[in-house]
Amino acid sequence: MSKTTLRQKHIVLRQGLRLNSAECPQHNPERNRRIVCIGGGTGTSVVLTSLKKYPLKLSAVVSMFDGGAGSSGCLRDELGVLPPGDARQCLLSLTKKGDLADLFNYRFDNGRLKGHNLGNLFMAAAEKSIGGFDKGIEELSKILDIKDQVIPVTLDNCHLKAILKDGKTLKNEDRIINYPSLSKIGIKELYLEPRAQANPKAIKAIKKADLVIIGPGKFYTSLIPHFLVTEIAEAVRKTNAKKVFICNLMTQVGNTDGFSVEDFLSVLEKYLGKGVIDYVIFNTGKLSPTLLKQVKKVFPEGEFIKYNRFLLAEKGFIGKDIIDRKIRRLDSSDIFVNGANQRTMVLHQSEKLAKIIINLLKN
Amino acid sequence: MSKTTLRQKHIVLRQGLRLNSAECPQHNPERNRRIVCIGGGTGTSVVLTSLKKYPLKLSAVVSMFDGGAGSSGCLRDELGVLPPGDARQCLLSLTKKGDLADLFNYRFDNGRLKGHNLGNLFMAAAEKSIGGFDKGIEELSKILDIKDQVIPVTLDNCHLKAILKDGKTLKNEDRIINYPSLSKIGIKELYLEPRAQANPKAIKAIKKADLVIIGPGKFYTSLIPHFLVTEIAEAVRKTNAKKVFICNLMTQVGNTDGFSVEDFLSVLEKYLGKGVIDYVIFNTGKLSPTLLKQVKKVFPEGEFIKYNRFLLAEKGFIGKDIIDRKIRRLDSSDIFVNGANQRTMVLHQSEKLAKIIINLLKN
Repeated sequence: MSKTTLRQKHIVLRQGLRLNSAECPQHNPERNRRIVCIGGGTGTSVVLTSLKKYPLKLSAVVSMFDGGAGSSGCLRDELGVLPPGDARQCLLSLTKKGDLADLFNYRFDNGRLKGHNLGNLFMAAAEKSIGGFDKGIEELSKILDIKDQVIPVTLDNCHLKAILKDGKTLKNEDRIINYPSLSKIGIKELYLEPRAQANPKAIKAIKKADLVIIGPGKFYTSLIPHFLVTEIAEAVRKTNAKKVFICNLMTQVGNTDGFSVEDFLSVLEKYLGKGVIDYVIFNTGKLSPTLLKQVKKVFPEGEFIKYNRFLLAEKGFIGKDIIDRKIRRLDSSDIFVNGANQRTMVLHQSEKLAKIIINLLKN
Repeated sequence: MSKTTLRQKHIVLRQGLRLNSAECPQHNPERNRRIVCIGGGTGTSVVLTSLKKYPLKLSAVVSMFDGGAGSSGCLRDELGVLPPGDARQCLLSLTKKGDLADLFNYRFDNGRLKGHNLGNLFMAAAEKSIGGFDKGIEELSKILDIKDQVIPVTLDNCHLKAILKDGKTLKNEDRIINYPSLSKIGIKELYLEPRAQANPKAIKAIKKADLVIIGPGKFYTSLIPHFLVTEIAEAVRKTNAKKVFICNLMTQVGNTDGFSVEDFLSVLEKYLGKGVIDYVIFNTGKLSPTLLKQVKKVFPEGEFIKYNRFLLAEKGFIGKDIIDRKIRRLDSSDIFVNGANQRTMVLHQSEKLAKIIINLLKN
């Protein structure tokens, strides 16, 4: 019998089991590890887009508090359905059927349908016809051949409200996003009305997770609201999973002007508790003057988020250049969809984020 | 060796080939026979719904001239897409995925989306985003796991117009359907503007067919317009297939008041040529007084179509009770969808039609 090296044995094993390298446990220590991404639509989609290429078990716990004049808010007002936008975006980022994802992501750009997105309409029709928001997710998952999970944080019909430090009350998510001086005045209290019951599936996923990722996303309207559902905050605090916060790239005009990485973390800890977050991933990259000019043209007051240089040496803080240089084009149906302000123009580089996250699984 | 009967041999053959009775050629002389159904949405869907249960090769050649205030007409006006309604209805009748069919058939019943149908929106989005009406059919066919074909009679953007005998011109399909005295005044000319080129797929299907079925459907707006596309009329005249006309059950107020079976055939022959139709299937059944009352409440002027008793003995005329007693419920989003008049309330009994059609294949 000839002697075989460990490497050769490993190859033989792989061939015997007909494993390709993506399936091989030695190549993929992340295999079957459970990651829960908590967030809204765009930011969490960017995270999922590259994570789906790894043999992980992914769950996205999505915000359900869209309101106002955007597609989700309109469907909510006019049809009485739950807001489908964030769940739809995450579902479409999880599929490998790119053509169908493009189709369900299609946003009508004129007539009475202007601003509505086919995937949102699908979800609304599912809720109205076969009953239940969950059923819409299930049907769209089947069509898109998705094995991962998209979980609404709650199935209750609640609105996000804010009382500002000057006493003013903002009565839905859309008003909060678009309020020009929210960060200047300051938020006294953010709350859900009526109180939301957590979706048991979300609690279960967080409990079983190896890693929980919070963000990126609209801070006060897509991230923090998850933790206003008290059982969700409780589950994040209690889970044995590592907890990672991915900080936004830019400030959101009106909402987080002047915020630094430390400011984001400090507000998040107000809702989750100090020391709950194990890792903060933040951006250290810069845009070229040409790209910066393009962004500033649309968001003149938006700033790249600052950080204290000491953070780079601090345990748990991971500062990397994670900007995607493919600046997202915005069109008239995209920037101010019926007045719903501020779609993101500069996104995280999805593959880079995924690599950082996979590395955390190995620690 | 024991003697085996022909029946036993047949069973052995079936078991050996692992055929079930639906797949067995001796049980199914109709296996792989090609049927083309020419029509619009509802009527042709009723024919397809039961035919799909047989091992046939089905093609539906569908009308593309919807206009005006219904869902298809609105999409056409507002988005500049081709009218998707008839193709969508036929696709949904061909799937075995009932839940998904219900979902894509869902019609929004309030707000800005009122009257729009999810399947229509899907087709419109496909045309706008991935390009081409055909692409929408292809994607929906994949989702619904349909092997049969739905073929738009043309991919040109044409409108159906009518010049009446009093000189008045009606400038789209919707106006023609809803014109109260069309049958009283009479049509001088029905035409498409601009002239439509036939879809080559439709010509090919008709050419290769064993049976071509025309109707049932809105006579002047869903059936006759096919034959205004001259290559289609030509293909029907030339094909070796048997040609079958399925006559409507009731007159359509304004359009075909007072029409008898013979009147329908005579107008159809004006467009197709005398002697082209081999078989006419017509209804001899009646509704119970209770059911009739329900129908008359909605369509007080609609009459069951009369026929000369002599027809029953005439070759090529097949008179049977083919009314479906499950009267279709109409709701506010259904009867007058934004003014698009006259959805059908009494439909053909789908299984009975299918049996008659399958029998014709055996002749």
